[in-house]
Amino acid sequence: MICVLSGGVGAARLLSALAKVVTASDLHAVVNVGDDLVMHGLTICPDLDTISYTLAGLNNTELGWGLAGESWRVMKELNELGGEAWFALGDRDLATHLYRSQRLAAGATKSMVTAELTRHWGLDMTILPVSNDPISTEFSTELGRLSFQEYFVRHHHEVAVTDIQFSGAAVARLSDESRHALLTSERIVIAPSNPLISIAPILAVADVRDILTTRRSEVVAVSPIINGAAIKGPADRLLGELGHEVSCVGVARYYRDLVGTMIIDVADAHHESAIRELGMEVIVSPTIMSDPDHARALAAAVLR
Amino acid sequence: MICVLSGGVGAARLLSALAKVVTASDLHAVVNVGDDLVMHGLTICPDLDTISYTLAGLNNTELGWGLAGESWRVMKELNELGGEAWFALGDRDLATHLYRSQRLAAGATKSMVTAELTRHWGLDMTILPVSNDPISTEFSTELGRLSFQEYFVRHHHEVAVTDIQFSGAAVARLSDESRHALLTSERIVIAPSNPLISIAPILAVADVRDILTTRRSEVVAVSPIINGAAIKGPADRLLGELGHEVSCVGVARYYRDLVGTMIIDVADAHHESAIRELGMEVIVSPTIMSDPDHARALAAAVLR
Repeated sequence: MICVLSGGVGAARLLSALAKVVTASDLHAVVNVGDDLVMHGLTICPDLDTISYTLAGLNNTELGWGLAGESWRVMKELNELGGEAWFALGDRDLATHLYRSQRLAAGATKSMVTAELTRHWGLDMTILPVSNDPISTEFSTELGRLSFQEYFVRHHHEVAVTDIQFSGAAVARLSDESRHALLTSERIVIAPSNPLISIAPILAVADVRDILTTRRSEVVAVSPIINGAAIKGPADRLLGELGHEVSCVGVARYYRDLVGTMIIDVADAHHESAIRELGMEVIVSPTIMSDPDHARALAAAVLR
Repeated sequence: MICVLSGGVGAARLLSALAKVVTASDLHAVVNVGDDLVMHGLTICPDLDTISYTLAGLNNTELGWGLAGESWRVMKELNELGGEAWFALGDRDLATHLYRSQRLAAGATKSMVTAELTRHWGLDMTILPVSNDPISTEFSTELGRLSFQEYFVRHHHEVAVTDIQFSGAAVARLSDESRHALLTSERIVIAPSNPLISIAPILAVADVRDILTTRRSEVVAVSPIINGAAIKGPADRLLGELGHEVSCVGVARYYRDLVGTMIIDVADAHHESAIRELGMEVIVSPTIMSDPDHARALAAAVLR
């Protein structure tokens, strides 16, 4: 059994690659909920949905997010009404949020709703919210305090960040299913998701850091920074703004207490010795899952 | 200024008729909120929306409810997910509920949201929720306690009712705008809406009954029962089940302390003397607004 600490898009790609070489039922994703939001009264879980949609093959490959075959009637009408339409919710996607919101109101947990949805979509992989309690990632920025989606979507992560908080994380309880997956899996993988905003909220939940520290030699992390840059999103910018080295070495240093093995891209092979000096093993592998061969190579590296 | 106590469809028709003979800005609808519900996390106000949509000319005349040019993508997807899809919400209609839910979460009242929406739709008439506090109409039935929409939509109002409660009405405050309209209008009109489930929740709000009692000679009610039957909906059945005479006389008796003048249909002209014996004035008029002439005649009767 493999347990993957997961954000959104980058984690979904790694999980897809792993699903080709491991029995899907052996894969458990422990997913960030710090991006979750309540908007228009609806509870929206972007990372859980991105992973579910992608693994079910329902993802919109043109947009790079959301569902394939999407339509936008509700948003168009909401925009015409003068409503808050900057956070685009497709009509198909809205059905997910309506379903979830109704089930939560009826007393279900996010874990239960995720299990219901993934079963409906025929997924064999287990997708787990790290916690059923609310956690919100918030940013101190040059524009003041911003919620995750205000920072990420509304301002296109183009504002300077001075601090990141995970509101609620201190009292959030690790979900039972996530705890079980973290304790019993043969290997724990940190996906190439943004360390500071996708993985950090998972690590901020009580016991996660302790479990990883204890199991450090079985923990492997894939660097999301390749040749000093993120493939997508603000991981590079944020690492720099918050005083980290913007390289796979900076990521390794950030994870050093929790991670036994770093997987770095072939383009970063020259950083191998610097990471070994941190007391970590290093695997050099293709990490950009741009074609099936690279994805397979990365999956093999993770399982090595 | 005319103030109309309003439910949904029947009230919307009367208001449309009145808007043809009175300056729209002189019309104030004080609207039932007992049908309001929170579903899928969304706050839905069926009577406020029915009246707004109809008066704005946006109503779906084929269905008899909802918006014209409607599409159903979200509901179709929600149904496929196994979600609760028995309460049909069109894609256009959903935009209204998303807008309202977002504004309420931001601290706006239903009055404010209604004003924003009706301004957006270019309505000159003033549409007012009777209260900004929650009221839920609930039914004791042969199947147990049902919410309004469970009774009305899910069970097609085909179950026997033994009692009706207006949960929250005892502590709900009459909205300032509704109070002003009720106190200052030249005439108060009770629309031909269901007395027991559309008008009664309005009357259950503190001070409404007192204001009407004090102003009784200026209060006129249009009977929704014609020749012993309701045009639409369960008004006739409910009157019978709850021990009222199923006729315009039964309606007059129900309203007698509050209403100075009953308007009854020409088909019920033979009931005139029985209603006069209750100490009420009677106007006999066409009351089915099936064509413009009848609508105009009813509007004239209301304003007489």
